[in-house]
Amino acid sequence: MMHLKRHPHANVIDLGVGDTTQPLPTTVTASMADFVHGLSTASGYKGYGPEQGEKALRKAISVAFYKDMGIKPSEVFVSDGAQCDITRLQLLMGPNLKIAVQDPSFPAYIDSSVIIGQAGKFVDNAGKYKNIEYMTCGPQTNFFPDLPSISRTELIFFNSPNNPTGHAATRKQLEQLVDFARLNGSIIIFDSAYAAYITDDSPKSIYEIPGAREVAIEVSSFSKFAGFTGVRLGWTVVPEELLYSNGFPVMHDFNRIMCTCFNGASSIAQAGGLACLSPEGLRAIQSLVDYYMENARMLVDALTSLGLTVYGGKNAPYVWVHFPGSKSWNIFAEILEKTHIITVPGSGFGPGGEGYIRISAFGLRHSIIEASQRLKYLIYQKQN
Amino acid sequence: MMHLKRHPHANVIDLGVGDTTQPLPTTVTASMADFVHGLSTASGYKGYGPEQGEKALRKAISVAFYKDMGIKPSEVFVSDGAQCDITRLQLLMGPNLKIAVQDPSFPAYIDSSVIIGQAGKFVDNAGKYKNIEYMTCGPQTNFFPDLPSISRTELIFFNSPNNPTGHAATRKQLEQLVDFARLNGSIIIFDSAYAAYITDDSPKSIYEIPGAREVAIEVSSFSKFAGFTGVRLGWTVVPEELLYSNGFPVMHDFNRIMCTCFNGASSIAQAGGLACLSPEGLRAIQSLVDYYMENARMLVDALTSLGLTVYGGKNAPYVWVHFPGSKSWNIFAEILEKTHIITVPGSGFGPGGEGYIRISAFGLRHSIIEASQRLKYLIYQKQN
Repeated sequence: MMHLKRHPHANVIDLGVGDTTQPLPTTVTASMADFVHGLSTASGYKGYGPEQGEKALRKAISVAFYKDMGIKPSEVFVSDGAQCDITRLQLLMGPNLKIAVQDPSFPAYIDSSVIIGQAGKFVDNAGKYKNIEYMTCGPQTNFFPDLPSISRTELIFFNSPNNPTGHAATRKQLEQLVDFARLNGSIIIFDSAYAAYITDDSPKSIYEIPGAREVAIEVSSFSKFAGFTGVRLGWTVVPEELLYSNGFPVMHDFNRIMCTCFNGASSIAQAGGLACLSPEGLRAIQSLVDYYMENARMLVDALTSLGLTVYGGKNAPYVWVHFPGSKSWNIFAEILEKTHIITVPGSGFGPGGEGYIRISAFGLRHSIIEASQRLKYLIYQKQN
Repeated sequence: MMHLKRHPHANVIDLGVGDTTQPLPTTVTASMADFVHGLSTASGYKGYGPEQGEKALRKAISVAFYKDMGIKPSEVFVSDGAQCDITRLQLLMGPNLKIAVQDPSFPAYIDSSVIIGQAGKFVDNAGKYKNIEYMTCGPQTNFFPDLPSISRTELIFFNSPNNPTGHAATRKQLEQLVDFARLNGSIIIFDSAYAAYITDDSPKSIYEIPGAREVAIEVSSFSKFAGFTGVRLGWTVVPEELLYSNGFPVMHDFNRIMCTCFNGASSIAQAGGLACLSPEGLRAIQSLVDYYMENARMLVDALTSLGLTVYGGKNAPYVWVHFPGSKSWNIFAEILEKTHIITVPGSGFGPGGEGYIRISAFGLRHSIIEASQRLKYLIYQKQN
């Protein structure tokens, strides 16, 4: 990396990639280690599991995350992660349709769409793909699209809490989104990977919204709330009521994709996931979430005390900082050069992210404290 | 299952699905458990790994399987299994090309091709998809296609040792295959998932053949030789010299697919894979392979002693039994009804499998002994 070449002795703090840093709770690793040791015994050995995931885990997910929402274990498909499921969903839908994405948003929706062949040409001066509908989600509209101005698309990717803005859509916003999808015959692919970080009463699942079962698929993951970024475990919910326009259940097609293109998540990761969802596991996981959210609060406090306009950090471990009139890459470069802190330029999340940077709160506490001080000093210098 | 409804007390022996049954070596599970315990410590915690796999594992694979073949660690992409990689390769190649497959062969090549949209219509009376080139591989041609009669396709899926026939292609056959691909500008997708079961001097990798680096991708897996069917670990080799007709390296595109549509194999499975490839691990794994091959020999002996025509079982843990003039499904049903043994009807692997059944040697020893006796008794009854 060039920065380290120029500053070989710099103590670089990486608050760029949203990668977890806290050790896993011992209750989770003990369960996985037990399962692993079992694999070398005649009674504990297990070969192929069901492609859709172990029954016990599907049930535990439906109880832990979808209580009172009517999601059955058979509607939960366990996977090796949300990003992989997003590609499988694109594969399911094929190249001949249009997608809408929040702008800014997690790049995987667009990147996988480009690979499947839905995106069309990249238009340089707009920073957009021709066939993709970009739904601007900025502070002017409380980070929600102006739906009446959005063209109808077959798929709508919607991430809440949003990466990078940290905004969790309100109940009213999600009601509007579900209405919009029902009216247009669109399918919402709702990415709730950060739902565990919600601290207010924003919905944690699209299925909290009446009518969502007929129009929405939900993709989620153990990566961010349980620190499973390397262990690899996620899930996708496809409700029975979700039908193609010809009346065929989408669930049957998704099941076919899972059985043809996937062979199940690692049995060890699944044992770990089940341990996360035990009462003891859930308590332990919550303390991981609290840790990162305390980091986020510290970053938000430091930056707002300097008069900066800061979003996120309340319902998500991302802080979204606005530098009106500046270019994301210039802000990124200046912060890196002067404080040795790696952030992500907002424009990497779409043209709507221009003028912003994203700071991840997934760091170690001492790095967050040090980073806050360095940022304060930098901005103090600039202001005086 | 209907059979169990009709025979609720039957002791059913499943020699159908090729699923491993032997416990993992303790040297492998101990390494995985150590890694897992490390995940709850500050020094041992790991988040996202490289999408292409841990460097040490990529290197160990290149040494263990491709010694003297010039495969570099950077050409090895670690994954969650061969079936998943086959889909990712189809995704890479897109819908607008033709594929050739051995007939009979592992159904995933065709199934994933159907999902991508390459296969065309299914022609019922032929039992074939219109756009797929079926390369008949029967005993008349020593289980190798009559290449001069095969149309040019962009991709050639080739599985050796073959599932279901158990045939390992000879060096001469593979030389012909590589020549054929070079002449036609085709890419071979060589599936070597059963290479560890080869007992004669048949090549274990396509890269043993000079010139293969320019025309072949190799897909392989820890599932069958290390019992990792549930743990999930595989790899794909894409050599630097493999180029599209416009000169662009296929490797760069595959790398992009891995980074966009995949987030790395489970770090725990990777730790297990590394342990399998240590000197101690390799010895332990070899005894698993020997166990299944002893099973295969017992099945082959029992069936040949009855005068049946039996293939496979020598270089692969599958026994391929010919019942000339009979329909696969009828043989399957009769064996199930009279002996309570589950096999796989050969026609499930393509029209070239008609008249055969596949018996898996991945069972427990006592099941294999019991199954051999039941089969002997059934056939003795039929013959007398």
